[in-house]
Amino acid sequence: MSGVIVTDPPRAAAKDVEALAAFGVATVSEAMGRTGLLGPEIRPVQQGVRVAGTAVTVLSWPGDNLMIHAAVEQCGEGDILVVTTTSPCTDGMFGELFATALQQRGVRGIVTNAGIRDTQELREMGFAGWARAISAQGTVKATGGSVNVPIAVDGQVIRPGDVILADDDGVVVVPRARAREAAERSAAREAKEAATREAFLGGQLGLDRYGLRETLERLGVTYQSYEAWDGERS
Amino acid sequence: MSGVIVTDPPRAAAKDVEALAAFGVATVSEAMGRTGLLGPEIRPVQQGVRVAGTAVTVLSWPGDNLMIHAAVEQCGEGDILVVTTTSPCTDGMFGELFATALQQRGVRGIVTNAGIRDTQELREMGFAGWARAISAQGTVKATGGSVNVPIAVDGQVIRPGDVILADDDGVVVVPRARAREAAERSAAREAKEAATREAFLGGQLGLDRYGLRETLERLGVTYQSYEAWDGERS
Amino acid sequence: MSGVIVTDPPRAAAKDVEALAAFGVATVSEAMGRTGLLGPEIRPVQQGVRVAGTAVTVLSWPGDNLMIHAAVEQCGEGDILVVTTTSPCTDGMFGELFATALQQRGVRGIVTNAGIRDTQELREMGFAGWARAISAQGTVKATGGSVNVPIAVDGQVIRPGDVILADDDGVVVVPRARAREAAERSAAREAKEAATREAFLGGQLGLDRYGLRETLERLGVTYQSYEAWDGERS
Amino acid sequence: MSGVIVTDPPRAAAKDVEALAAFGVATVSEAMGRTGLLGPEIRPVQQGVRVAGTAVTVLSWPGDNLMIHAAVEQCGEGDILVVTTTSPCTDGMFGELFATALQQRGVRGIVTNAGIRDTQELREMGFAGWARAISAQGTVKATGGSVNVPIAVDGQVIRPGDVILADDDGVVVVPRARAREAAERSAAREAKEAATREAFLGGQLGLDRYGLRETLERLGVTYQSYEAWDGERS
Amino acid sequence: MSGVIVTDPPRAAAKDVEALAAFGVATVSEAMGRTGLLGPEIRPVQQGVRVAGTAVTVLSWPGDNLMIHAAVEQCGEGDILVVTTTSPCTDGMFGELFATALQQRGVRGIVTNAGIRDTQELREMGFAGWARAISAQGTVKATGGSVNVPIAVDGQVIRPGDVILADDDGVVVVPRARAREAAERSAAREAKEAATREAFLGGQLGLDRYGLRETLERLGVTYQSYEAWDGERS
Amino acid sequence: MSGVIVTDPPRAAAKDVEALAAFGVATVSEAMGRTGLLGPEIRPVQQGVRVAGTAVTVLSWPGDNLMIHAAVEQCGEGDILVVTTTSPCTDGMFGELFATALQQRGVRGIVTNAGIRDTQELREMGFAGWARAISAQGTVKATGGSVNVPIAVDGQVIRPGDVILADDDGVVVVPRARAREAAERSAAREAKEAATREAFLGGQLGLDRYGLRETLERLGVTYQSYEAWDGERS
Repeated sequence: MSGVIVTDPPRAAAKDVEALAAFGVATVSEAMGRTGLLGPEIRPVQQGVRVAGTAVTVLSWPGDNLMIHAAVEQCGEGDILVVTTTSPCTDGMFGELFATALQQRGVRGIVTNAGIRDTQELREMGFAGWARAISAQGTVKATGGSVNVPIAVDGQVIRPGDVILADDDGVVVVPRARAREAAERSAAREAKEAATREAFLGGQLGLDRYGLRETLERLGVTYQSYEAWDGERS
Repeated sequence: MSGVIVTDPPRAAAKDVEALAAFGVATVSEAMGRTGLLGPEIRPVQQGVRVAGTAVTVLSWPGDNLMIHAAVEQCGEGDILVVTTTSPCTDGMFGELFATALQQRGVRGIVTNAGIRDTQELREMGFAGWARAISAQGTVKATGGSVNVPIAVDGQVIRPGDVILADDDGVVVVPRARAREAAERSAAREAKEAATREAFLGGQLGLDRYGLRETLERLGVTYQSYEAWDGERS
Repeated sequence: MSGVIVTDPPRAAAKDVEALAAFGVATVSEAMGRTGLLGPEIRPVQQGVRVAGTAVTVLSWPGDNLMIHAAVEQCGEGDILVVTTTSPCTDGMFGELFATALQQRGVRGIVTNAGIRDTQELREMGFAGWARAISAQGTVKATGGSVNVPIAVDGQVIRPGDVILADDDGVVVVPRARAREAAERSAAREAKEAATREAFLGGQLGLDRYGLRETLERLGVTYQSYEAWDGERS
Repeated sequence: MSGVIVTDPPRAAAKDVEALAAFGVATVSEAMGRTGLLGPEIRPVQQGVRVAGTAVTVLSWPGDNLMIHAAVEQCGEGDILVVTTTSPCTDGMFGELFATALQQRGVRGIVTNAGIRDTQELREMGFAGWARAISAQGTVKATGGSVNVPIAVDGQVIRPGDVILADDDGVVVVPRARAREAAERSAAREAKEAATREAFLGGQLGLDRYGLRETLERLGVTYQSYEAWDGERS
Repeated sequence: MSGVIVTDPPRAAAKDVEALAAFGVATVSEAMGRTGLLGPEIRPVQQGVRVAGTAVTVLSWPGDNLMIHAAVEQCGEGDILVVTTTSPCTDGMFGELFATALQQRGVRGIVTNAGIRDTQELREMGFAGWARAISAQGTVKATGGSVNVPIAVDGQVIRPGDVILADDDGVVVVPRARAREAAERSAAREAKEAATREAFLGGQLGLDRYGLRETLERLGVTYQSYEAWDGERS
Repeated sequence: MSGVIVTDPPRAAAKDVEALAAFGVATVSEAMGRTGLLGPEIRPVQQGVRVAGTAVTVLSWPGDNLMIHAAVEQCGEGDILVVTTTSPCTDGMFGELFATALQQRGVRGIVTNAGIRDTQELREMGFAGWARAISAQGTVKATGGSVNVPIAVDGQVIRPGDVILADDDGVVVVPRARAREAAERSAAREAKEAATREAFLGGQLGLDRYGLRETLERLGVTYQSYEAWDGERS
């Protein structure tokens, strides 16, 4: 497989990225119409960390980290490296040495649907990671691939320069052109959620707040006392 | 799918629930003849937490949390919400807003074979959760289901009012009618285990304590020195 | 199934084990030509712990821990118990009572491709564990098996007396006869990695350090500016 | 684990079973409100076969077929054996010898969420099977369990005497007391489907037949020409 | 979730689709640089069938087939319906009634990373299907989605009008704009493979045909007689 | 990864291989003490085919079939190629061209815990295959590995020259040195099974034939009439 390394793709504006960093992954995904989430099998290797940054994308051959080396050179301040493989792979394609090189360049984290290793070291140096697997399995540097081309991971297309936001709940991608809109929508949603939180703390029910009693009725869901229901079954 | 919301089912007695809360999941399951365990894919979203409570059950459509809203109203002090879906689902059907509403009502936790989100917030607010997946994926409120009907999860039937006990090892259900018996049996087992622990600390072997040398002999398991065994193979 | 309990197999030398304990799992596996790793589904039940020891191997029937009882007697100072089953099994075959007995004997941990339980207790008592599953499911003591015979787990053969090294990245096995060589090679690799780390901290790229620019060229991987690349696509 | 063998449970009426045998699994499940299905991981070991019968249930220890031997004696004309294990198991717990014994007694098939073996022989002798796994792995006869108690498999409770219907799409259970109702409802649904089929063959759209255009409008789903949509994106 | 139904997207030219239909999925993927394949979990529900057609894409909510109804209207001669869901789903979202409606319109098959049902009927009526699951589980019609927007499935982006080719080996997508190129490259590859086949039938080795002996040497792979190798190990 | 290609390892005697070919996989595994089976995830790509042969083993890098090319030269009459990868891989590493070359040389089939492609062609040419995945994904020829070294697959060690027997139930390995013993034991087991089959056809129960009534009693399994049992529960 040959490939291409695309240089200097436009990134989402830093201030939009910072704005998005104020929200959780769930909030941003909801605000964008429940879109953009990578699947639940990509999990953080640390707890309690949230990062936002601009994607540098890598398409690698399984068991081969050659293109990650090529990608390091394309990474800069505020980026997040996003690595996928041409077929399923759990190998530890990324570890502490890569993290050292990237941290030097101001990169904020790694997201991969393959594997990560040196996880304890990554936690100690504060380099954040999300991966499908944790594996010490090493890789070769023998097969080509691409950097900064669009990649499709778990139902989402990630383009270079898109915003990646990741926390304990997972990873969401926001298209570069919609970063500001996403931040604004997320703020609106968070305000709405704050109001709901207050209402719930005050004892209001979602059934009433969202008008769901009618929905239940329309769907034919009925209420029965336990005695009546239990009697019917005997 | 229409459904039914059963109101005010009888709950296991609070003092039996408290009694069970003194034991680990493994102890209670063993005490009940190795029964009642949900499968190993339902994992805690926090570490070092044990809760016991009475089940409020929810049967939901995948990707739809309407019936959780209906269930909140049925929940009270000492309950644990137990949510399953009609087909496999990893969506984040439950998050911080639900937890806020439930915590208000004295509910102790959530157990689901679908997904949970806002996990960092749940940990911070001390609302315990066990789930098959962690996912930020949001859900709709469009399809009916049931509350407080018996549900079957991972080989176990859970009825409203049954005792749910959950810790780092997983989740066990104890039928309402057997809660006291389970607590008594668990105490007996724990006493027995304490004696075994002492014996093991004193150097006794399980082989001797449980009479397993005869079992090995009856099964034809033999002892060989390494030299004899290795010689036979060459 | 009958079986055999092999007594007193030779172990790797304690000083080689200690030497290996200074390195991470990834380092040792790399140093040995990227060999010896168990698969990524065997995960630690604690965080930040590394142990090295000599393998006492167990081949058990699924759902049956009889042979672990037999193995305890064969375990001593510096050993690690390694348990596999004749067919896939997630049951909690190992828990706190076994750990108590083994800790008494100087055993350092448990590695199993079945399940572990009492995980909170194991963490509290400082007995390290790696397992395919965490499950409270108990087991019987009814079927034979073997102790200290070679077992094949996840692509690796583990023989009694081999060195087991485990940390947050997973588990690696080093054949007894190669323990010293592995330690020496690991030291060499670590030195090399330290130099690379320095170089990366100084801004050198892997592309240059490893001569990968030629590899990319040979493979036909090309560089394009974003503008050129994007233009080509429209 | 001890257990109980329940003798002579009431079975669903043979004529209701025969009536249900006229319908596919999907039709019956739909007719019963989309309930009763075992999950998609339980697959047929043959193609193009449909069977209906009354359940004889077995709860076995993993890797142990003792209770299937006990169950054979409880099986008779028109039954289907349904086997589950106390924890996940893929072993070949059922094969040609069991099928021979059961076929003698008029049993119509086997459904299990463990494994089956001798699949080619089963196909040749016309004994139908549905299983989670195909595996030649043999089992022991060492641990107790139960026959003809309710079991919970993949979200469904199966009681002895319930109707089991299985075909290429999977397996559905119909509670004994609802067998006639299920057959009647299935007939009604099939008639409705026949009408829909005719309508579709005549070119009618589901959108019109089910009034879904309004649903789409209510949900805010809009129509756009490709040109307009593509223009908006650039 | 609201959404959009895009009407009349451009399709790949029929003659390019027909040209591609002459090749297997593996050949076309190889010819396009080993790209375009959906993952191995999407399997055919029949054997020995190959279809090629133009994609009509559907993005549905899990457990909800509303948008498939909307998509039927957008389908015509030579199309293949491609359905994905916003989160993982195994429900039987597609069955014989949909197939009847689509077959009427000249549609050639269904590809989905959710589930299919009525598989025996589909085989009998000659409507081809590829799916992640076979499941009789029915669905509702309650939640919006989109038709004929780009979807990302298993690492591939599928746009409306792209060519879908599917056979026993799986499913490949060829971008609309590259359909002719793909057919030409596939023909070239097939010619090359025919020559290789002849050479292999004549006894030539891949080692010699592809010049791999040098590769092995460069990589340090050596030859040893069994005796020498075995001797070294003792 | 460098590696070694071991030439001319001793093979099991042809007449022992032929003798084993008369038995099914389950029979041989049982006869050898329930050992030797690869796991249930390695499935045949055809139905109703059984082959026996001597193993030529391959250890490959994931996504790389270089070493299969090297192995072809080492294959001869009566061999079966057995391919594993250093880490999990589902790529289609083996297809019709390899099968053509191997069939020329008298090789009888392929067993791999990676993927196979061209499955329809393999069936048509009568070259038998067992694999973990069916995938059209192509591979490169860039990384070293080994041929005819022992490999560990799914709990089994396979050495070059061992007997591989595969049918619809899966794959079993018999160590070279035990091939004759395995054939003899299998014949004895088959005779015993034939007697059991006759007994079962005559109506005898396994409970009686194997003396299991006492086992049930010893284990505390009791019999209850449905009425008694049901009464106890209410």
